Amino acid sequence: MKKSLGVKPYLFPMPVALIATYNEDGSVNVMNAAWVGICSENKIALNLDEEHATSRNIKKRGAFTITVSNTEHMKQADFFGIATANKMKDKFERSGLKAEKSELVDAPIIKEYPLSLECKVHKIINDGNDFTVIGEIVDVKADESILNEKGDVDIKKLDPIVFDQAGRSYYKIGEKAGRAWHEGVPLMNA
Amino acid sequence: MKKSLGVKPYLFPMPVALIATYNEDGSVNVMNAAWVGICSENKIALNLDEEHATSRNIKKRGAFTITVSNTEHMKQADFFGIATANKMKDKFERSGLKAEKSELVDAPIIKEYPLSLECKVHKIINDGNDFTVIGEIVDVKADESILNEKGDVDIKKLDPIVFDQAGRSYYKIGEKAGRAWHEGVPLMNA
Repeated sequence: MKKSLGVKPYLFPMPVALIATYNEDGSVNVMNAAWVGICSENKIALNLDEEHATSRNIKKRGAFTITVSNTEHMKQADFFGIATANKMKDKFERSGLKAEKSELVDAPIIKEYPLSLECKVHKIINDGNDFTVIGEIVDVKADESILNEKGDVDIKKLDPIVFDQAGRSYYKIGEKAGRAWHEGVPLMNA
Repeated sequence: MKKSLGVKPYLFPMPVALIATYNEDGSVNVMNAAWVGICSENKIALNLDEEHATSRNIKKRGAFTITVSNTEHMKQADFFGIATANKMKDKFERSGLKAEKSELVDAPIIKEYPLSLECKVHKIINDGNDFTVIGEIVDVKADESILNEKGDVDIKKLDPIVFDQAGRSYYKIGEKAGRAWHEGVPLMNA
């Protein structure tokens, strides 16, 4: 017998995505968001509050980058989720991190994190209180340090943090459990 | 200097969500999807191919459930991602799992997994090749076995699998890295 927990946004695991944009004065803004998801091979959806400085910046610049937060810079990632750029004008400077302009989109890439997605706005959807930005991923930039011998991302080297909404905590990625499109093959022939 | 990896849907971590629906004849269908994301306190977005049996079922029944896959039933979860209900009519039976009808929505709940979200269709968005279903979460059902002393979900007891798109692999959740809305506090006062 299962127990009812009520209405909760309980998807596990959830990412810690850092959305980086330029403010009107050209300074860098970064917010922390877990309510993001891949939509297709080249699209990502961000579910935001329209009042965020990030939302205004995305509407004005038509671009943003997504950085996957890692354990090494968890402190800064968490700070980006606590501080509000609307009230703290030097939010990014306080993090102690550095950014450089993307060559492809009008948005900054945070230098210290090893993986970023450069995105152009594909579509903005307003639905009542929900404000969704669909971004087109135009390139992925990665540090050599997180790549495997094939030149692709090694999740253990990337060391992304997992957000646990129920426990208000962050976790590391654990041991490998299995191979995708492989573990279920025996049931295909059962 | 960061390296360009091209256009890739690289968000880390990603979930393994099992979308359960009823076929026209009342039989159960389950598909495995990583391209899902929480949209708000009570909404979840599924990004599907409109040709899936699941997409047809959702349009007809206006409902679905989302089950978070755990390590214990990783094999079945992977199978749901390999097999196509359009070609394999007894897909769910082959998994060896059982389902029961949700009391709240017109969709099945898989009994063996400990966490499911019951959802009604809020909106369907067609955008070129992209087919997005926004579901309203009307309740979350959990086995007692995954709850902590406060009656909320304990992510380590839930033991969800993490999908690694780059490495085509599944991982377990590892050690706790920190507390959300806490690790960044020192930077607020810096």
